Amino acid sequence: MQMMPVTDSMFLLMESREHPMHVGGLQLFKKPEGAGEDYVHTIYRNLIDSAEVRPLFKKRPAAPVNSLGQWMWSTDNRLDLDYHVRRSALPNPGRIRELLELTSRWHGSLLDRHRPLWETHFVEGLSDGRFAIYTKVHHAILDGISALRHMTNTLSEDPTARDCPAPWELRAARPRSAAFNPLSFARSAGRALGEFAAFPPTALRAANQAFREQRLTLPLQAPKTMLNVPIGGARRFAAQSWPLESFRKIKKSAGTTLNDVVLAMCAGALRDYLIEQRALPDAPLTAMVPATLRTPDAAEDGGNSIGAILCNLATNEPDPARRLETIKNSMADGKKLFEGLSPVQVMLLSAMNVAPLGLSPVPGMVNYTRPPFNLVISNVPGPRTTTYWNGAELDGVYPASLLMDGQALNITLTTRADSVDFGIVGCRQSIPHLQRMLLHLDTALTELEFATR
Amino acid sequence: MQMMPVTDSMFLLMESREHPMHVGGLQLFKKPEGAGEDYVHTIYRNLIDSAEVRPLFKKRPAAPVNSLGQWMWSTDNRLDLDYHVRRSALPNPGRIRELLELTSRWHGSLLDRHRPLWETHFVEGLSDGRFAIYTKVHHAILDGISALRHMTNTLSEDPTARDCPAPWELRAARPRSAAFNPLSFARSAGRALGEFAAFPPTALRAANQAFREQRLTLPLQAPKTMLNVPIGGARRFAAQSWPLESFRKIKKSAGTTLNDVVLAMCAGALRDYLIEQRALPDAPLTAMVPATLRTPDAAEDGGNSIGAILCNLATNEPDPARRLETIKNSMADGKKLFEGLSPVQVMLLSAMNVAPLGLSPVPGMVNYTRPPFNLVISNVPGPRTTTYWNGAELDGVYPASLLMDGQALNITLTTRADSVDFGIVGCRQSIPHLQRMLLHLDTALTELEFATR
Repeated sequence: MQMMPVTDSMFLLMESREHPMHVGGLQLFKKPEGAGEDYVHTIYRNLIDSAEVRPLFKKRPAAPVNSLGQWMWSTDNRLDLDYHVRRSALPNPGRIRELLELTSRWHGSLLDRHRPLWETHFVEGLSDGRFAIYTKVHHAILDGISALRHMTNTLSEDPTARDCPAPWELRAARPRSAAFNPLSFARSAGRALGEFAAFPPTALRAANQAFREQRLTLPLQAPKTMLNVPIGGARRFAAQSWPLESFRKIKKSAGTTLNDVVLAMCAGALRDYLIEQRALPDAPLTAMVPATLRTPDAAEDGGNSIGAILCNLATNEPDPARRLETIKNSMADGKKLFEGLSPVQVMLLSAMNVAPLGLSPVPGMVNYTRPPFNLVISNVPGPRTTTYWNGAELDGVYPASLLMDGQALNITLTTRADSVDFGIVGCRQSIPHLQRMLLHLDTALTELEFATR
Repeated sequence: MQMMPVTDSMFLLMESREHPMHVGGLQLFKKPEGAGEDYVHTIYRNLIDSAEVRPLFKKRPAAPVNSLGQWMWSTDNRLDLDYHVRRSALPNPGRIRELLELTSRWHGSLLDRHRPLWETHFVEGLSDGRFAIYTKVHHAILDGISALRHMTNTLSEDPTARDCPAPWELRAARPRSAAFNPLSFARSAGRALGEFAAFPPTALRAANQAFREQRLTLPLQAPKTMLNVPIGGARRFAAQSWPLESFRKIKKSAGTTLNDVVLAMCAGALRDYLIEQRALPDAPLTAMVPATLRTPDAAEDGGNSIGAILCNLATNEPDPARRLETIKNSMADGKKLFEGLSPVQVMLLSAMNVAPLGLSPVPGMVNYTRPPFNLVISNVPGPRTTTYWNGAELDGVYPASLLMDGQALNITLTTRADSVDFGIVGCRQSIPHLQRMLLHLDTALTELEFATR
């Protein structure tokens, strides 16, 4: 047995039926040419039969799970791989809609704490011949970004490679081009929180000041909306891809960053969705946006710092171009606040932005009566090139994040070789017709293209 | 809100991740002639669109579920039928094996206490063209037998009937022949426990005496076996049908009851399974068998009494014919004990036999250090004639019961028009290779046929 760091046990302690603390991801693959009926079954059998499992995927809370188990890890040496890796299929007519329904169910159920905290589902039966893999991992063992990295590390740029391991396998993945290097915001933020007590009070004070300043630059505090309510345990999941090229064009015409375009697209969709629900507040929505920041130190240590920026989404603004402009300025202002802060202070400031997400029990954190932001929108880099897994081309990576009380909707997207893949998670009770968000996102992108032409 | 009777809340209080307190059932159907690809989807849509839900299926524990909710029922007036009734399909190659894997998973996960405590899964993709329905219901709202009755009540003897409702629908089922009238042992036993405190001490004393006597008639106390261990939350489910005709022949040749033959078949299979696992105890296994008893009063009130009989399975006996003989005598002895007892006393005696199954917190119940029996084997009457549901012929009804600590295996079967359908539930951690039981059952039946020819 092994003591659990507080950053791990935090997620076990916070978990309840209404608050599953796992992150998930849905991957779509095209079968290779000439693949037969039993292609997915064969891959599955090979994995199950040959796999030596990594220690990380054998970790489980110690027994009894409700007391000791929240503080100690133990190792499951009799791992029942059949239990963790499962096969499913889609009912007729096998559209993406049926896939999303199935994913919604899986994403809304708790992992079994008596076993290592992960599950992988192979899904057949898509009418277009593709297949899908949905994976869920408890946040106590892997954050979303690390989980994505584990998964993408198994991919190859070689379509003929047939020795790609599964994420849980001990077998090493092939070395790949250095171009692909996903960040690990959440891991760093978690580390910051874990080491919180060790920080000198002066560093805390400086970060606190920057935090107050950032909140003052926003036109108003985030309004209370239908997204900021207590949540239930069931989930809805929606996912869709859009061509990266569209985003690049808008970015170029409007002189913004690619992430600004993504945020403006989300803002437009949220505005339309809230109008449809007769729930659009007068004040603009505020998003919490994890973002890469190149601090003055960055050149020296060659690394990046990650900040959690509060962004004014300008959902009160009917004009898409002006909305994009406001978002661009808000993001630039947010980044400016991080300038001149040491990496430790950047970390602290980010941790404070993340804090109301449920981390408030951490000592020194502030409690708010109003939400400091309405939702989290994260943009996670995916593989930059076309990649394959045992010959099957990766055709989509849709992250499924976790929700907390007061945060009933989450948008996380990956930027891949030639597309942007959106994964949207909503509380089943409080966010009706989540699938409509996909339509609104599509409209918002078209409007932006038109407005910046 | 409505106070919950203690017989309901008992099952909520006893429930934990390791001890899901729902019962389930898997039904197989043959599609009607000329049914298209979207036959199951169409049935599903019709049900979802038209259904008015019965109050029983809208009951959920009051909020907050962990304190008040274990004592009060409330009504969910915004029932999300889409959440409760789900569609799935089998992965390639779509055998019964894949169906059982899926059912095992569903049977091993907890129901969401924030919603009415039931789920129904429509399953397509069986390679032989049949489809399946798996239903799970919390024991707090329906016991297994009542759940089965709810389901079979929706069936029709008319293959052309297309107006069969779903079990949760308010729409009344068609009246059917009186020949089919399933018993409700568990409900009665539950009632007995609930009213326990109200019984006069003399009735308790008489039943207690009969209980002691019954235990003395057994050659030994039930041995400790691998079936009698603490359990985990995950399950394995196995199911198969055998022709009723085979059982009838053996019954006739050996001069036993049909249930004796069923018990002898289970005994043979258990013996082979335990030998294979190198875990056969020297002493014979004891089964708890719910059985119909015609008491002297029965003629007067026209009703049946149900008893819980402890049966010596003679698993130490290699000869199938002698095993059957021992079982026949043991069951006859057990029934004799109930003679002369009033229906209330019969109920009490049964309740005491059931008590160690986890009902020991009920006052007046005895605690045992050794199991009074090794497993429960129940035989539940199903429809006696060929029945249809919206044109689809019922081709199997496999009950999936609940397990408790010390009871890691359960066998429940239904006797139908022309077959006996076995449903076997095992704890995934402690009962390896549960599917082997099906093979052993098949061998045991063949051996009995041969031995009694």
